[in-house]
Amino acid sequence: MELAEIYAAFRRIAPYTHRTPLLTSRLLDRLLGKRLLLKAEHLQKTGSFKARGALSKALTLKGPKGLLAVSSGNHAQGVAYAAQVLGVKALIVMPEEASPLKKAATRAYGAEVYDRGVTVENRERVAQALLEETGYAFIHPFDDPLVVAGQGTAGLEALAQAARLGVFPEAVLVPVGGGGLIAGVATAVKALSPATLVLGVEPEGADDARQSLERGEIVGLPEAPRTRADGVRTLALGRYTFPILRERVDGILTVSEGAILEAERLLFTRTKQVVEPTGALPLAAVLEHGGGLPQTLALLLSGGNRDFSP
Amino acid sequence: MELAEIYAAFRRIAPYTHRTPLLTSRLLDRLLGKRLLLKAEHLQKTGSFKARGALSKALTLKGPKGLLAVSSGNHAQGVAYAAQVLGVKALIVMPEEASPLKKAATRAYGAEVYDRGVTVENRERVAQALLEETGYAFIHPFDDPLVVAGQGTAGLEALAQAARLGVFPEAVLVPVGGGGLIAGVATAVKALSPATLVLGVEPEGADDARQSLERGEIVGLPEAPRTRADGVRTLALGRYTFPILRERVDGILTVSEGAILEAERLLFTRTKQVVEPTGALPLAAVLEHGGGLPQTLALLLSGGNRDFSP
Repeated sequence: MELAEIYAAFRRIAPYTHRTPLLTSRLLDRLLGKRLLLKAEHLQKTGSFKARGALSKALTLKGPKGLLAVSSGNHAQGVAYAAQVLGVKALIVMPEEASPLKKAATRAYGAEVYDRGVTVENRERVAQALLEETGYAFIHPFDDPLVVAGQGTAGLEALAQAARLGVFPEAVLVPVGGGGLIAGVATAVKALSPATLVLGVEPEGADDARQSLERGEIVGLPEAPRTRADGVRTLALGRYTFPILRERVDGILTVSEGAILEAERLLFTRTKQVVEPTGALPLAAVLEHGGGLPQTLALLLSGGNRDFSP
Repeated sequence: MELAEIYAAFRRIAPYTHRTPLLTSRLLDRLLGKRLLLKAEHLQKTGSFKARGALSKALTLKGPKGLLAVSSGNHAQGVAYAAQVLGVKALIVMPEEASPLKKAATRAYGAEVYDRGVTVENRERVAQALLEETGYAFIHPFDDPLVVAGQGTAGLEALAQAARLGVFPEAVLVPVGGGGLIAGVATAVKALSPATLVLGVEPEGADDARQSLERGEIVGLPEAPRTRADGVRTLALGRYTFPILRERVDGILTVSEGAILEAERLLFTRTKQVVEPTGALPLAAVLEHGGGLPQTLALLLSGGNRDFSP
């Protein structure tokens, strides 16, 4: 993965994505004793950065009949939106037991949800059979250079926006699931601002990236971890993303469930922004590890898709 | 109330308030078939427009010993913030049975909460006694020209921001409680953009402004109305605000509790913004009366102070 690939992805997706704002909050800064730059991907199309990667890949396909993905989360909506942009169908494979709300949200973006007989165990096989049957193009949620390049555009934008504010981010904090977002962001940051640290953030119970970087090989979790941060329940880093993380990520911080909840609450009550638990991971890391972190931090708020409660 | 008074208020408060953004959402526009401009007062200092009016008044006082207000809502925080700016004490009279969360929020802004023996019935008398005892200056939540002028700056900004977008707002929709906000906004709008309608929005069960404008005299509610929109539970318009509404407000729309809830949900899930029920009143009016309303609407999202639920 080279910087040029991220620039190329940016040129592809720019007409269909938001340049999301880099928010600041004097209230949060004072409360936490830091200078925080919040990259607001909860305000991205489809409510998360996933629209970037899905579009980046989809826009390189030559006349696809449709797009197919396996996801019960934000990637489903990213792919559904990419299909809308291309004017083709989207078919999303989701376990039958996935939440009806998530199915509805995916359908609301015009995708077809395929869930008949689908379980967490058989979903990859079901997808393979559907790919052969339909001739649709598969969009992986993270382990694909074109997807990673798309996610990296969030980092590209954040650096440019920080520069415009006249602020140098000493570290960038990024949620880690399969590693697509942090691989892209780290590529942009290490090329354009090599002195900036790139730190991943995982829930304590889902620390496979931390273990993998420590051991120098991909360590998978035995089963889907229990965490509020449902965007990072991925079992392991990808074969494509892992080497990028080894080369370009400076460390992984883990956070408790309590810190995630408190970070969500702070974003909600202080900045009035709706950020999902996964998107609150970087702020949770500031709450738990703030003392050991540099002063000026860019936090990647990855998404904002959570339910409304009156 | 003249436009010049609003400009003067703007000059006073500008160093201590945010020029809150005028947000747009293509998703909401498509969903509702309108062009909506959302004046984001939930992103104002203290989380509501009340900081404007409190500061506008407080900054005209000559060396006050402290500020005193009667409020269990956003006005309390506005006055607490104004006192911070002036470097004096704030004393807020609140019924004992007011929510502990609201008391804590007011104290968090450095104010003292006075609630010993205070009830909804005796709070004005308690305040009067405290004023004499302390020599503090009283800040009324709405029935004061300097407060109204401060609230009007939100309208001034919204018009300037709409012009910068190249958009002409055919109507401005504003929540109505005591009438301070809409009196100020209507003064700005009718002076600068006379062809723009100014419409108030009230919950169905709290339609005293609608009745008052119909009858041509102030009609009070017999008791505090039950509504999600706790910012407009005021029993009646003020003696100062009522004549301004008569002269400058084109109509009052009422909305159901269901529409308020749905408007909050839309703002939360589609724009990822935390807006309190009162702040959602203008969007609720679009949901219930959209067909009869013009195409391009500025909505005053008055505040965002609501509790977080995980």
